[in-house]
Amino acid sequence: MHPEKQTEAAQHSSDQPADRSVDAIVIGLGPGGDDLAARLARGGWRVLAVESHLVGGECPYYGCIPSKMMLHESRREEPDWERVATRIRQEATDHWDDRVAVERLTGAGVTFVRGHATVDGGPSGPGVPSGPGDRGGEGPSSVTVTPDDGGAPQRWTARRAVVLNTGSVPSRAPIPGLPEREAWTHRDVITAQTLPASLAIVGGGPVACELAQALNGFGVRITLVVRGERLLSGEVPQAGDLLAERFRAEGIDVRTGTEITEVSTSDVTRYESSHGLPTPSGPVNVALSSGEELSVDHVLLATGRVPRDEVRVDGWCRILDDGGEPVPGRYALGDMTGAGPFTHTSVAQSAVVAGQLLGDPATGPYPRDAVPRVTYTDPEVAAVGLSERAARDGAEQGTSDRREVRVARVDLASSTRGWIDEVAGHLTLVARGEAGDVGEAGDAGDSGEGPGSGPVLVGATVVGPGAGEILGALTVAVHARVPVAELMRIPWAYPTLHRAIGDALGQLGQES
Amino acid sequence: MHPEKQTEAAQHSSDQPADRSVDAIVIGLGPGGDDLAARLARGGWRVLAVESHLVGGECPYYGCIPSKMMLHESRREEPDWERVATRIRQEATDHWDDRVAVERLTGAGVTFVRGHATVDGGPSGPGVPSGPGDRGGEGPSSVTVTPDDGGAPQRWTARRAVVLNTGSVPSRAPIPGLPEREAWTHRDVITAQTLPASLAIVGGGPVACELAQALNGFGVRITLVVRGERLLSGEVPQAGDLLAERFRAEGIDVRTGTEITEVSTSDVTRYESSHGLPTPSGPVNVALSSGEELSVDHVLLATGRVPRDEVRVDGWCRILDDGGEPVPGRYALGDMTGAGPFTHTSVAQSAVVAGQLLGDPATGPYPRDAVPRVTYTDPEVAAVGLSERAARDGAEQGTSDRREVRVARVDLASSTRGWIDEVAGHLTLVARGEAGDVGEAGDAGDSGEGPGSGPVLVGATVVGPGAGEILGALTVAVHARVPVAELMRIPWAYPTLHRAIGDALGQLGQES
Repeated sequence: MHPEKQTEAAQHSSDQPADRSVDAIVIGLGPGGDDLAARLARGGWRVLAVESHLVGGECPYYGCIPSKMMLHESRREEPDWERVATRIRQEATDHWDDRVAVERLTGAGVTFVRGHATVDGGPSGPGVPSGPGDRGGEGPSSVTVTPDDGGAPQRWTARRAVVLNTGSVPSRAPIPGLPEREAWTHRDVITAQTLPASLAIVGGGPVACELAQALNGFGVRITLVVRGERLLSGEVPQAGDLLAERFRAEGIDVRTGTEITEVSTSDVTRYESSHGLPTPSGPVNVALSSGEELSVDHVLLATGRVPRDEVRVDGWCRILDDGGEPVPGRYALGDMTGAGPFTHTSVAQSAVVAGQLLGDPATGPYPRDAVPRVTYTDPEVAAVGLSERAARDGAEQGTSDRREVRVARVDLASSTRGWIDEVAGHLTLVARGEAGDVGEAGDAGDSGEGPGSGPVLVGATVVGPGAGEILGALTVAVHARVPVAELMRIPWAYPTLHRAIGDALGQLGQES
Repeated sequence: MHPEKQTEAAQHSSDQPADRSVDAIVIGLGPGGDDLAARLARGGWRVLAVESHLVGGECPYYGCIPSKMMLHESRREEPDWERVATRIRQEATDHWDDRVAVERLTGAGVTFVRGHATVDGGPSGPGVPSGPGDRGGEGPSSVTVTPDDGGAPQRWTARRAVVLNTGSVPSRAPIPGLPEREAWTHRDVITAQTLPASLAIVGGGPVACELAQALNGFGVRITLVVRGERLLSGEVPQAGDLLAERFRAEGIDVRTGTEITEVSTSDVTRYESSHGLPTPSGPVNVALSSGEELSVDHVLLATGRVPRDEVRVDGWCRILDDGGEPVPGRYALGDMTGAGPFTHTSVAQSAVVAGQLLGDPATGPYPRDAVPRVTYTDPEVAAVGLSERAARDGAEQGTSDRREVRVARVDLASSTRGWIDEVAGHLTLVARGEAGDVGEAGDAGDSGEGPGSGPVLVGATVVGPGAGEILGALTVAVHARVPVAELMRIPWAYPTLHRAIGDALGQLGQES
């Protein structure tokens, strides 16, 4: 943290009212927590918000935003790392300073403390009453806040709600010879002022893939070391296969089914704080499980993230106790809820919680089965809702054994626009409904998915250029449970790429 | 028509059964007619299909497909006209030969005659029974077919349906000094083997704009002469303004509020048939209403199209008589119905008609108010449904005077992805519903748009890169009448461009 920010934080915490009783306490100000604190304050609640690192979280400072800036720059005709590094510093992250975010929060009326917080009794212990009519709690919750400015721990009371949003941390499998502090993470790339000449990236998920393609675009020699069989193992296998093919054509050395067995170096690159702008030195020698050896400047670990704290929540983001019952007045958002480690899920959960607490009747439960996700590689890999397997598992667990799952896949190159633009990619739909009625009668009959609506799409994947935007149509369809029969009547604009949705719907209807 | 095709056509017409009584006669085989004839034949009907020009219509031979190929090629780093001209000839149009399309049709069991057809008694005169239960007609319809091969006129009988799909022709305002046959149309560009050095394009609609930008990309010096105030006058004014700005930055000379007053030339460029591959010669002198004069190789007219024949239809594509009553057994599709001069409307109408005739209960009426449309310029201009004005007119005509229209517009550059990618563009939503409940309670209350669903989107426009794909989400929303309150709960994937939909929905909810 910069010295001036410590002053700022100290100032905020010393400004606090002597009365340490508020309506809600929000712990962790990643995207959802930040959003929720402001929403509740705008709704007239007294809110305490606590964050030890940057207000706004990983996404604006080290995640989505700077990484998409890198990808954008890497696709220019002449990618210029210095240009994007400067833009990340000056425009996106304000040199990793959250002063503006803190001011926005306090300007909305939120009391902010830079520090750590502990819920007395634990997050899923006895909670606070959730509202005037709810006397199920055991009185106000107590939270101990320890300011980062060295001040004494403070005891705060939440009259109505405690909301946890403590996020996630990188998941790191130990690699022999590579102390944790010497491995690079995405933060080292995002904060780098100059790039290394070569990098071994460990991991095959969205972050590993995006970084690999972006950095390759800037001329960094990339080896992608993937333990599993393919890239993006959470998506349809065709996605990872197409991406690997593209990566290889672009010169990325993709090694699937491979692990690093040992790292050795005589000239250790010290891991510095992400503000310390690590400068490449090297090389390090990397031994692979295949028996081969690589010499690279750094090893970057991008093997996913795990929640810092784990809680179980229901669709209303209420924390559940060990018996599966919601604890009054206790909520959680974001990565810790397992609803998908995405900014959009966290912010959407914030809207759900704010709606409940402020009494907005338009609020509905958070739809865990209709989450969209996009990997912003070229081609983009975009998906929403359930995989085929999850849909089948759900169908088996369903009350009706007549619920049928059907899958349709079309090659984008076989659609008019895909053929014109010589596009590589595909679109997969997963539909679920009454046996035999997928793609048939719309209004007749009762289905497992909704009253009298026939089958609906429960999942979809698009791989191709602009897949993330095509996903919008499928997100509406899956989220709003638009019947397949209704979707089949849509005159998709010709010749868009998303007209392939119509082709795939037709295939669903034709299958026996 | 090529000599071998005449032989082909003659062969087909001589193959016809002596029994000239069929279930349906389809006149005009543009996209919808072609699609419908095959659908009905696959459904077991005996079908006669008549077309005098190319089976498949304007779209694959002179319209959507080759024009999008041109645009695609023009955006490469080194656009190569010869490459795309060859691709249009060899891959897209088979040298403007429809043999494959004819074989597909006859392979589906359709009887095909290359020629012209006249409905005895006229299209909206007494019709045929529409089905076994319908005795409202006056017996089978009679159609006179005149083959192009010089054979004698044939009298055919349709037992169940006559479907018209006679399409449209270019609308041409006479220009002094420019005989019609000497003006270029889009067909001359699509069929050109070499490009002229300069072109004055008259018109400001989608075709004029797409051709201007594509040809400019190939180095043709373009003057765009637009009578109206702005480009794309059918869309929100911001669309035309942004497009004109981009066109000018790319070097296109955009002259709005301008007409050609006279064309003079000493070296006339003869208009040849579209198969005759006209070769540029010139120049011609063009006098503008501004008083200026241009010298260009050709004048290209792209001032829109008008239906060849006009009929009125209802939502089921049934032709209406003068009293507004459907004529039994008479249907129309495509441009002649005024439902939007698009391939996707014509094909969607085909599905509606086929559903009725073949008795598919999933068929619904054709939704005239939810038509999407895309101009494939850069930026793309994509819209669906009603304009603000049309929505307000509809609200005024509505039975409830409490229906309220609200409009929200967001700048794509103010969305996260738009800012990252430095995108110019915007998104406009038009919502209609109960006064005061736009963006509020979802389940409560009754609205003019649907029972208990609250307000819905009735129109939307997106201008920007990939706008046509973003439109998919809005097409589903408008077509399926997904309540605004439901759309507001969608966790749009971060940071896609289509997340701007969420921003705009939020604005709808906040407006007073």
